[in-house]
Amino acid sequence: MTRIGFLGPHATFTEQAVRSLRESEGAELVPLPGSPAVLAAVRDGSVDAGCVPLENSVEGAVPPVLDGLVEDPPLVIVREALVAVRFTLLGRPGTTIDAVTTVASHSHGLAQTRGWVAAHLPDAEVRVSTSTAEAAAQVARGEVDAAVSSPLAAEQHGLEVLADDIADNPGAVTRFVLLSRPGPPPAPTGRDRTTLAATTRNRPGTLLGLLTELAVRGIDLTRIESRPQKTRHAEYWFHLDCSGHVAEPAMGEALAALHRRCDRVRFLGSFPRAAGTAEPADASGGVGSPVVPLSSATTDEFTAADEWLARIRDGSST
Amino acid sequence: MTRIGFLGPHATFTEQAVRSLRESEGAELVPLPGSPAVLAAVRDGSVDAGCVPLENSVEGAVPPVLDGLVEDPPLVIVREALVAVRFTLLGRPGTTIDAVTTVASHSHGLAQTRGWVAAHLPDAEVRVSTSTAEAAAQVARGEVDAAVSSPLAAEQHGLEVLADDIADNPGAVTRFVLLSRPGPPPAPTGRDRTTLAATTRNRPGTLLGLLTELAVRGIDLTRIESRPQKTRHAEYWFHLDCSGHVAEPAMGEALAALHRRCDRVRFLGSFPRAAGTAEPADASGGVGSPVVPLSSATTDEFTAADEWLARIRDGSST
Amino acid sequence: MTRIGFLGPHATFTEQAVRSLRESEGAELVPLPGSPAVLAAVRDGSVDAGCVPLENSVEGAVPPVLDGLVEDPPLVIVREALVAVRFTLLGRPGTTIDAVTTVASHSHGLAQTRGWVAAHLPDAEVRVSTSTAEAAAQVARGEVDAAVSSPLAAEQHGLEVLADDIADNPGAVTRFVLLSRPGPPPAPTGRDRTTLAATTRNRPGTLLGLLTELAVRGIDLTRIESRPQKTRHAEYWFHLDCSGHVAEPAMGEALAALHRRCDRVRFLGSFPRAAGTAEPADASGGVGSPVVPLSSATTDEFTAADEWLARIRDGSST
Amino acid sequence: MTRIGFLGPHATFTEQAVRSLRESEGAELVPLPGSPAVLAAVRDGSVDAGCVPLENSVEGAVPPVLDGLVEDPPLVIVREALVAVRFTLLGRPGTTIDAVTTVASHSHGLAQTRGWVAAHLPDAEVRVSTSTAEAAAQVARGEVDAAVSSPLAAEQHGLEVLADDIADNPGAVTRFVLLSRPGPPPAPTGRDRTTLAATTRNRPGTLLGLLTELAVRGIDLTRIESRPQKTRHAEYWFHLDCSGHVAEPAMGEALAALHRRCDRVRFLGSFPRAAGTAEPADASGGVGSPVVPLSSATTDEFTAADEWLARIRDGSST
Repeated sequence: MTRIGFLGPHATFTEQAVRSLRESEGAELVPLPGSPAVLAAVRDGSVDAGCVPLENSVEGAVPPVLDGLVEDPPLVIVREALVAVRFTLLGRPGTTIDAVTTVASHSHGLAQTRGWVAAHLPDAEVRVSTSTAEAAAQVARGEVDAAVSSPLAAEQHGLEVLADDIADNPGAVTRFVLLSRPGPPPAPTGRDRTTLAATTRNRPGTLLGLLTELAVRGIDLTRIESRPQKTRHAEYWFHLDCSGHVAEPAMGEALAALHRRCDRVRFLGSFPRAAGTAEPADASGGVGSPVVPLSSATTDEFTAADEWLARIRDGSST
Repeated sequence: MTRIGFLGPHATFTEQAVRSLRESEGAELVPLPGSPAVLAAVRDGSVDAGCVPLENSVEGAVPPVLDGLVEDPPLVIVREALVAVRFTLLGRPGTTIDAVTTVASHSHGLAQTRGWVAAHLPDAEVRVSTSTAEAAAQVARGEVDAAVSSPLAAEQHGLEVLADDIADNPGAVTRFVLLSRPGPPPAPTGRDRTTLAATTRNRPGTLLGLLTELAVRGIDLTRIESRPQKTRHAEYWFHLDCSGHVAEPAMGEALAALHRRCDRVRFLGSFPRAAGTAEPADASGGVGSPVVPLSSATTDEFTAADEWLARIRDGSST
Repeated sequence: MTRIGFLGPHATFTEQAVRSLRESEGAELVPLPGSPAVLAAVRDGSVDAGCVPLENSVEGAVPPVLDGLVEDPPLVIVREALVAVRFTLLGRPGTTIDAVTTVASHSHGLAQTRGWVAAHLPDAEVRVSTSTAEAAAQVARGEVDAAVSSPLAAEQHGLEVLADDIADNPGAVTRFVLLSRPGPPPAPTGRDRTTLAATTRNRPGTLLGLLTELAVRGIDLTRIESRPQKTRHAEYWFHLDCSGHVAEPAMGEALAALHRRCDRVRFLGSFPRAAGTAEPADASGGVGSPVVPLSSATTDEFTAADEWLARIRDGSST
Repeated sequence: MTRIGFLGPHATFTEQAVRSLRESEGAELVPLPGSPAVLAAVRDGSVDAGCVPLENSVEGAVPPVLDGLVEDPPLVIVREALVAVRFTLLGRPGTTIDAVTTVASHSHGLAQTRGWVAAHLPDAEVRVSTSTAEAAAQVARGEVDAAVSSPLAAEQHGLEVLADDIADNPGAVTRFVLLSRPGPPPAPTGRDRTTLAATTRNRPGTLLGLLTELAVRGIDLTRIESRPQKTRHAEYWFHLDCSGHVAEPAMGEALAALHRRCDRVRFLGSFPRAAGTAEPADASGGVGSPVVPLSSATTDEFTAADEWLARIRDGSST
């Protein structure tokens, strides 16, 4: 039976994400303590795949996941899932907000409810937990008074919802990814995403060069994050999400170009875009709007160009 | 007397940073609970300036500071300071590491010692504090057993160093900035940095267009961060550090170009680079290395070009 | 009275062009022997302005005019005119095509009728004249049997049209320009052209850099010609026609940028586009079509950006 | 026996060029009347190859050759030769310059001696010949008094050198090319040139896009010419000389990219650069100089990148 690790314990948003994926059917779901533990378990083979949060529409990327993805041995993303994030304040039955002196959550949950907590629990001590579900468990065990958590955890731990929808920015969505050890990527669907990370020497214009390699081949960039390289001063890993699939010629050529241009480039997977994620915007632009260097050749045009190239190389055409 | 707020309490790295600045001489230093509180105090005039951490060489940018900088009313950076970050584990006299069941620190401190804490305090409960110094205070008050903190806090609170240099990546440096309400920027020194934030519509190539505007005018980019816009799905603020000063013509022209191209652009200050921060790299590159579109016109060349333009406009030259 | 020199003698296409210009009303039109003579006469003040052909829709640019424009002292274009070119073969009354053993024309006329002459006068001796009208005069003087010329010259010299519309590519249009010594350019009309010439050192990418300076400022390029620099091996003058007027901020900034980037840049005038000349194409492109880095800021947006720049420089805004 | 056509008659600079090529050893050299005739003879198979002038260091490209190259059926360049051009004024024995009333030459020869002829033969009638050698023949036949010609023609026709080195710009060099019908290109030598022509729709930035495709793949551009398309108003063929060989991966990828991006692209041959032709300039630039987006990947780096791409596509690496 397939084993899939996830950022546990049970009742986290991550479990909600992994259960939404086809891969979870018939699989054993293994809660693990923290995203680094999930990555490690996939790497050492104790699970076949692992699910972790990658970015949140409000809080941005999850730094330890980004940093963990570029470590060795390599991992690749094979699937993604979007989960609408709804935060609630959970307490033991009978607790009132006024009586809350300690509140716990995952650091991401705390960040997304910072304003609410500051306004409603100004004097409460804030504790960071390894997950929102663990925070709920801490409440159940009496270690803290309240947890900022998914409403799912209320039922599991017999807690009450003291306040609902307490996120500072309602409508937040978190993107989760399913990781595995390297293998053939999922087949292209025509609506795919390719994730990669690249390092460049810290010299002027290298990022511009990298983006130009993508742009001239019609590859749209939908996310970029910079993360300091832990081992080199003032140098960065750029984490990129691009439209397209490594099996397509435009993406293949772009990746090969990055391989030549960058100090290091790490392929982090090609996989279907989750429904609801941003489509690359239309390139046409309008008056006064920023427009950019693009090509938009189709796979057929790539094939035709390669066939022509073969003919001019053997002298049968010009 | 000038009042300067800082991310308190006393004995934080931020206090160490603010004391290294000339502006702190003769000023009243006001500890405030958290970076958002510092920004708010500068905005409402209760302090004249405020000092907060902006980025760490290991952990990257400080998201709430980036997000707070682009809020209204506007703030500008007028000075920066680099502080080498040294983390220690502090406990009450007599405490041994074995006996530590709870450990507290600022989330940044926890992130930079994650590996050490996981290895040496695998079973300890981790609590997030508003600052490393507050964590030390919590130890002194008996609320937690140990704090990941600056060694300065040991003396202040009568604590002992249970373990020294516990950062996972030694040699980390944090960059702090001194903020004020808008006013004339510090005079150019020839070694200046300009910080800005810009939003673009989420359409292909807008980031490339933005970087091209900088590159053609010879502006080097030394840092780029993307942060989700809290109010718009899938759109970003790009936070940029550039070489140069707003008073210089190349930077002036580049900023005006971004003003035309971007949805919004926020000028976050021109100020002297702190000694020890990365020089823009040399542009010449070498065989096989990534090279980029650059100009490198001097201010004299800008002046000469503008004088020539005036002459061709009035017909006295061509 | 204003004196305007033109590529004479009378009855050339150039006279037709100059008579179509408002500037010719009440002016004395002075025929001169060859384009270099026209340029020289404007330079030495013996005429106030001069009219010469610059490019033909079939034959391309007129090299001696391009080369002469970048010589010293400087000249500028103040007006342009388009003339549809219709070539006829003229002979003395009674001449038949079969009897033509010598045929004369300006080298441009010969080039545009090369195919016709080769087919219909395969054995005729071809002589180059200083103008098509001079060729007609040579026929009238009995020096040659036939001239490739404007039909206007038939009447003037009492010649007969032996064959009409003999251009190899019917529909050719020649663009003529009116030159003067430097002075304030004509006022912007909103439909203007700016002509310039620039030299770059022969190093990879300099042309790309030059075009990028135009593109990022939304300047469209409608013509580019390279001409070898007579005094430097393997280096070129690039002759460019751009949309816009030097008085506009986008063009002013682009010209200043070229002044910084190029070895030499020569402003050759801003003037109204002649009706019938190509509009810059629409930038939006379509699927599969080549699209490029563009901005399209209006003059108002340039003004707004400059006002914002002034405010951030004095600290009254961000 | 191989038959090679050339721009005749005998004693032209073109014959000098073709005789300098290895291919002429043992070949029958066939003089033909004009460059179009040479191209036609190669196309129809009446000769195996043809030699024509392509560009002159002073006068620029030879328009009819450029225009003829892009016609159908296709031709490719297989070799190039540089010839130093030395112009002399030839007359029949006993002629003095004062007595010259008619002077003939090829239009290119007339263009390169225009200044000398205007100064020394101001009243002479100028006649265009199909070649400089034909002009000398006309002198020998008594049809004109003098010819601007190669000194080689003096001996052949029993003429005297009335004036030597009469070019307005001494040191001119003409580049000749040997054309054939399409076939496998000459093997790469490491010092090759690739010539091509491309058309783009007349829309802003298409030339910039085309140059960017070359630049990102490290292809240096050593010549660019624009020629109007005879059949489409205001549209151009761009004629480009690039460093490199079609068999190399960088050039192959760049050509395929142009095939996708351009309306039409015509491969005009990869062949060894003639000794003495300009090396691509060094890319490093200096302070104040124009520098540009370049990559400079070697063939080994292309191979390594392709191998890596194959591995990430099959899942054996990342």
